[in-house]
Amino acid sequence: MKLATLKTGGRDGSLVVVSRDLKTYQRVPKIAASLQHALDNWDITAPRLREVYAMLNDGTALAAQPFDAADFHSPLPRAYQWADGSAYINHVELVRKARNAEVPESFYTDPLMYQGGSDSFVGPRDPIAVQSEEWGVDLEAEVAVITGDVPMGASPERAAQEIRLVMLVNDVSLRNLIPNELAKGFGFFQSKPASAFSPVAVSPDELGDAWQDSKLRLPLSVTLNGQPFGRPNAGEDMTFSFAQLVAHAAKTRELIAGSIIGSGTVSNKQGSLNGSSIANGGVGYCCIAEVRTYETIETGSPKTPFMKFGDTVRIEMFDKDGASIFGAIDQKVEPYVERAR
Amino acid sequence: MKLATLKTGGRDGSLVVVSRDLKTYQRVPKIAASLQHALDNWDITAPRLREVYAMLNDGTALAAQPFDAADFHSPLPRAYQWADGSAYINHVELVRKARNAEVPESFYTDPLMYQGGSDSFVGPRDPIAVQSEEWGVDLEAEVAVITGDVPMGASPERAAQEIRLVMLVNDVSLRNLIPNELAKGFGFFQSKPASAFSPVAVSPDELGDAWQDSKLRLPLSVTLNGQPFGRPNAGEDMTFSFAQLVAHAAKTRELIAGSIIGSGTVSNKQGSLNGSSIANGGVGYCCIAEVRTYETIETGSPKTPFMKFGDTVRIEMFDKDGASIFGAIDQKVEPYVERAR
Repeated sequence: MKLATLKTGGRDGSLVVVSRDLKTYQRVPKIAASLQHALDNWDITAPRLREVYAMLNDGTALAAQPFDAADFHSPLPRAYQWADGSAYINHVELVRKARNAEVPESFYTDPLMYQGGSDSFVGPRDPIAVQSEEWGVDLEAEVAVITGDVPMGASPERAAQEIRLVMLVNDVSLRNLIPNELAKGFGFFQSKPASAFSPVAVSPDELGDAWQDSKLRLPLSVTLNGQPFGRPNAGEDMTFSFAQLVAHAAKTRELIAGSIIGSGTVSNKQGSLNGSSIANGGVGYCCIAEVRTYETIETGSPKTPFMKFGDTVRIEMFDKDGASIFGAIDQKVEPYVERAR
Repeated sequence: MKLATLKTGGRDGSLVVVSRDLKTYQRVPKIAASLQHALDNWDITAPRLREVYAMLNDGTALAAQPFDAADFHSPLPRAYQWADGSAYINHVELVRKARNAEVPESFYTDPLMYQGGSDSFVGPRDPIAVQSEEWGVDLEAEVAVITGDVPMGASPERAAQEIRLVMLVNDVSLRNLIPNELAKGFGFFQSKPASAFSPVAVSPDELGDAWQDSKLRLPLSVTLNGQPFGRPNAGEDMTFSFAQLVAHAAKTRELIAGSIIGSGTVSNKQGSLNGSSIANGGVGYCCIAEVRTYETIETGSPKTPFMKFGDTVRIEMFDKDGASIFGAIDQKVEPYVERAR
């Protein structure tokens, strides 16, 4: 099943069901006004949404309309929980190697995770709005899941059962604000502005063989200013599965329906260099910080700049037949303009 | 105006207006189903809620019912944003003094703030539910505000205008999980379980002279296991006002209506010792960690234990006439039991 949220309809938008080929969608106001509402009442709403999905796919839907990603918000325009893991330890290893530091042994058994802000996500085609290029705008291409209600202390097995939907996310980072912020000891805050999610959220069963052991085993495609930048496989080098990440998040508190848990920047090891660019025959990167670290190790200093006003990033994932699964996140860096309410 | 949320009515409860003396309340389903809904449409809902408030206070409300805090959830049972400052630098100074460390100069100009989890708050009379006493359960008594929509980069002056409501909060902390978690560098996560808020949220105008320059100038009363534990003045030694804290939170992202921003543990300096207990003639503390730090400085080791199963904490604030403003947070530490949904 594929779900999305039209921008029209207020702060939570309007829930729709999208066809498998992303060509049509149908509104479902009688089933649930919003995705959050559907998740709040999943046992009742999911079977009915699946019926609409089946009709969209076989061409018998009564009110199918053409799908255009530009009309859509992130599947949850605002959420109650957004926690982002750092499950691809290669990313950490690379950063540490650049400063000749060891990765603590515990990092391989105890997931790194930061508490994100979830009140004001932006849409998949909305700008990355910042007040200054000097903040050091970077993309982070990731996979994320939306959960149902997860009790405190849930095992990874229990957590796996509560994974309702899968999405892509651009977890935008302001690299030049990170060092001072982390030095204060309380984690990220100003350095993690609004994230954007893929236009479509997909139930795990829809992913078929690509969803195994709570990992999504397909390449994640990242294009920076129109050039291929990354295509690492999200199922490789993922030290912690989504089931483990959800269980980690629920260790001392309940997660309620609609909680979003992210994978962290997808990163493949590719041998001893901890990754190389697509131009050099590698699978490339899912954030600029990583290639800058690689450049620092190789040449002594970073070469690739962070994103400037006008720069674009596109994040997408294709199935084995080359069809887009989630639709594309496609964002341009722009100066912030206050929204009318 | 005083607002609260009945537990009945689903995940967001049901919004009610409460009389000034906390003796009666009236449901307002025709104005707004939930507090979040009221905040989403504040320009329309606030004047109508104020009309009901006036009628409750002069005894002309049509459907007033007796108010019992046990029936109420936190004003926002789930929120889209919960960010907690650390505005009382005395708390930081005390902790640093215990380990002979300096407070960085920047801490007096750049607020410390952590991104909290907001998906599953508990009610003001619900237990502090944990799976183990060994986690080191501590209270943190604080003041918090709920904002309207705040644009990115808002000045403190603009931020001040967007403060809609004021509450108390028990920002429960799991002290024994904090050292390992902060050492990982990504801030708090498992060490900050579900917070509880006061049964009633109050508009700033209701606070009269006690609300000055976005600070709440009244003592905060904390009772631990029935004994007076703290009564520091929340308006004293607050290095950053709520306007400054909200502006800090909005530096690189918009805050949407219903965002909650906390003050951090209230703490008064009381001279060179950075605080002393009520038994010793001081104003006491708003968290156990602080008295343990004080004990460590004085005697070489902490004496006061963290909370055990069965321990209780009550947090309240009284106006100049001795009347409770927000109602009381009153919680007991209990073993976690999974909730039926």
